[in-house]
Amino acid sequence: MDRPSPGVSDAPLSPLSFLARSADVWADRPAVEDGVRAWTYAEHHDRVRRAAGFLREELGMEPGARVATLLPNEAAMLELHYAVPGAGGVLVPLNTRLAGDEYAYILTHSGASAVVASTALRETLETALEHMDGPGPRIVWVGDDDASAQSYEGWLRASAPVDLQRPADERALLSINYTSGTTGRPKGVMASHRGAYLHSLGVVAEAGLTTRSAYLWTLPMFHCNGWAYTWAVTATGALHVCLPQIDTGRIWEALLERGVTHLCAAPTVLTMMLDDAAGACCPAPVKVFIGGAPPTPALLERAASANLDVTHLYGLTETYGPLAVCAWNPGWDELDATEQGRLRARQGVGTIVSEALRVVDAQMRDVPRDGETVGEVVMRGNNVTPGYYRDEAATAQAFAGGEFHSGDLAVMHPDGYIELRDRLKDVVISGGENISTIEVEQALSAHPAISEAAVVGRPDDRWGEVPVAYVTLRAGQALDQAELQGFMRARLAGFKTPKEVAVLDQLPKTSTGKIQKFVLRERARG
Amino acid sequence: MDRPSPGVSDAPLSPLSFLARSADVWADRPAVEDGVRAWTYAEHHDRVRRAAGFLREELGMEPGARVATLLPNEAAMLELHYAVPGAGGVLVPLNTRLAGDEYAYILTHSGASAVVASTALRETLETALEHMDGPGPRIVWVGDDDASAQSYEGWLRASAPVDLQRPADERALLSINYTSGTTGRPKGVMASHRGAYLHSLGVVAEAGLTTRSAYLWTLPMFHCNGWAYTWAVTATGALHVCLPQIDTGRIWEALLERGVTHLCAAPTVLTMMLDDAAGACCPAPVKVFIGGAPPTPALLERAASANLDVTHLYGLTETYGPLAVCAWNPGWDELDATEQGRLRARQGVGTIVSEALRVVDAQMRDVPRDGETVGEVVMRGNNVTPGYYRDEAATAQAFAGGEFHSGDLAVMHPDGYIELRDRLKDVVISGGENISTIEVEQALSAHPAISEAAVVGRPDDRWGEVPVAYVTLRAGQALDQAELQGFMRARLAGFKTPKEVAVLDQLPKTSTGKIQKFVLRERARG
Repeated sequence: MDRPSPGVSDAPLSPLSFLARSADVWADRPAVEDGVRAWTYAEHHDRVRRAAGFLREELGMEPGARVATLLPNEAAMLELHYAVPGAGGVLVPLNTRLAGDEYAYILTHSGASAVVASTALRETLETALEHMDGPGPRIVWVGDDDASAQSYEGWLRASAPVDLQRPADERALLSINYTSGTTGRPKGVMASHRGAYLHSLGVVAEAGLTTRSAYLWTLPMFHCNGWAYTWAVTATGALHVCLPQIDTGRIWEALLERGVTHLCAAPTVLTMMLDDAAGACCPAPVKVFIGGAPPTPALLERAASANLDVTHLYGLTETYGPLAVCAWNPGWDELDATEQGRLRARQGVGTIVSEALRVVDAQMRDVPRDGETVGEVVMRGNNVTPGYYRDEAATAQAFAGGEFHSGDLAVMHPDGYIELRDRLKDVVISGGENISTIEVEQALSAHPAISEAAVVGRPDDRWGEVPVAYVTLRAGQALDQAELQGFMRARLAGFKTPKEVAVLDQLPKTSTGKIQKFVLRERARG
Repeated sequence: MDRPSPGVSDAPLSPLSFLARSADVWADRPAVEDGVRAWTYAEHHDRVRRAAGFLREELGMEPGARVATLLPNEAAMLELHYAVPGAGGVLVPLNTRLAGDEYAYILTHSGASAVVASTALRETLETALEHMDGPGPRIVWVGDDDASAQSYEGWLRASAPVDLQRPADERALLSINYTSGTTGRPKGVMASHRGAYLHSLGVVAEAGLTTRSAYLWTLPMFHCNGWAYTWAVTATGALHVCLPQIDTGRIWEALLERGVTHLCAAPTVLTMMLDDAAGACCPAPVKVFIGGAPPTPALLERAASANLDVTHLYGLTETYGPLAVCAWNPGWDELDATEQGRLRARQGVGTIVSEALRVVDAQMRDVPRDGETVGEVVMRGNNVTPGYYRDEAATAQAFAGGEFHSGDLAVMHPDGYIELRDRLKDVVISGGENISTIEVEQALSAHPAISEAAVVGRPDDRWGEVPVAYVTLRAGQALDQAELQGFMRARLAGFKTPKEVAVLDQLPKTSTGKIQKFVLRERARG
């Protein structure tokens, strides 16, 4: 008896419990609205239970089956964040901006038995399915044909609601979120019920969500399950305001007229918002959480004048979204704007539920807290992925030395806040999307005229960065730019396609033959 | 690989991680003040680490050893909430208002190897030790002789700081909190690191704590570890304002001049506060959490006029303090004060980290949600104790049927909120009818002359029992018994109306402010 024994005092941690509670406590409160329709928590819960009933009874989903989604930020996407795990399945949220063969790869690798997809992406998905062997997953359409009995809405009407089941083991798999694949093929990042539950409680604490909050869905839900706001907003009985596309007019309408209190976005989106509504000012302070790139002082100043209180976050798909926050110290309140901007641009510290971030050298020793010595950011803890789905080699490599290797280079400041110096070495971030330069280089290199290729990001007012390429040609070959563009567009999503391809006699290289991307980056800037 | 395997992504849940984080992130922020001294989080952490060093090195504390405290709400008490578990021990917080032989029993039963005690309680403790066999625990004194090398402060100065260790197993025992033992010997309620961690995150979410918060220690820390505010306040880097005694002058000073934002108390304490400062009004809204008895409409009204925003909580030592909250639905904002008061007096719903409360009949079937059918409140989940220390029989009895039996009788309202009707053992049965003493007490408290009321059953030849009441009066008020009878008959059925209403100077109370009904019951019999 000296050691308590689990049992009645041990409920499995799962974000499914948040919906169960809010459906009861906040039954009559607004849960979801999409600009056209609106549902209370009781109604939302009923839809989720019907979706789970459909998955189990009509699709015959087996425990542990993977169900993919190809959906923008609409109600169905939120509902499936509960219905799929609540029916015993594993959610695989697909990025809506990939190319056909990327979908084919992910659907095959995950072994998804079904895809719930928007009719707006019908052509892309059907092309992808043609690339797959075997019968392929079953498709359930959400969209224009809502009246049809075979649509998602039709199934919801027809299906009997079932109770959502938390897994007996809180470490059970909840979702697989595929990375954009910085080193070749996308990797499937696993999230557990326990990790998602704890990360969500961290979001509640850091964002200060309550049942009076209204969260605007500017961040895609397919991005790390919307940084766990899919679950955290529900946990507090707050309102989800869905926004299927980034439309600055609708964003401002939500901010100025619909009582939005919180949103997350890439700095690019924030810039677009501010560009499109000069002089607008929210009636009450709105908390804005940004990630992907540090906010510039100019952006912070413009945001403040619009009553947007910006906090910088940092994380990866492998960390359930942001596991670090640039936590504001009230001792900084009196500093001047320049100094505040410098402090706010840092990636910060682990959240209330995160283990401390470390910045280490190649021998896994902590670098000094001097704000100068660069090392790699490594992480561990409950909101770090347990690994890559069906990829033990990649998992072992990522966790070498007992911590997850972010691939990000940073310094540790004397106050314990980290600041990135080189984001994932080479990755290009365009419009909030990570672009693996290696993936683009591989596509370029597939062209018969091209010998070598290197891709870097060029600063861009609208997208933050855009990819540009430097190539050398095979002997005797010439490059037809128009033909190359067509070649690339057939292989890559539009946002990954280089905006410029410059031909060089040779690429700058180190003595050991590695391409010096920093040289190209400077050239691209010039 | 389909099931994530624990490892690097699995950190044991423990409130010790909160101090580690805040000592780093909020190092320069105020952590603790006691009216005389003040410490930052870095300083507080250093003291805790020295206390842990003292426990390990000087006391030779073994892993799992029990260390008791006999301390009011002072810095040492807070420090030991981290130092004891951080050194691998188990905290046993003793109520400072027990009698000598109760201490002897608890120290013997828990097998405490040491007691850290206030010199103000020297005589009581030394008497208790005389009742014990064997060498007894080692005593470390906190208090007047702080200058001495053998005092707590002396040891802190002399000891080398050690790192706090989280247990490898999050279900390890963290503390044993002895009940006040209204039915026989005190029972040792076990708390685990996991339970305390999750309960603390629930407190953060429900109370809305941030690093700008200042928490006033009106509730004793020995009471369920201060309802986990010992950990939750630290988790957010907020300030602990220690208050060794309930002193309404110091409470108002803290509220009006020291920026206190949150406090917890029994309704009795809140009544004392309001009695002692007519017309005082906090400069900003202060969140007040009360438990132990429902707030009366009159108390809520007086609190609101002082800018105190009262929330009613419900729980037991067996549930880490309050696991239920009378969560305020914004839909109630527009109701009139009477209706709001009625809703606020309910015990409410499980918190964000709690499992749903149930109200069941003798066969463990849920009673209907009709606000009328009375059943027993039963609980389960991570913030329910895993059992009583070294008392398997009591544990088995309390968890009969697979849920923890609270011994509280309640109804379930249609909206899922519970409302207590009585303690199982306090209910008055008159002529075969159950009378909720709480209902009668609320009716009495609505009378303008009455400050507090307690109702008990008196044996009666004809009816079995009849209700009789003991009341205290508001300052300057007198009671007209005939007028009161009319007042009551307008509000209650005849069989519920007290057959006698006796005016007392004060009601008998436990050290934690609960009315001692067994004393009144004996008085009624006499």
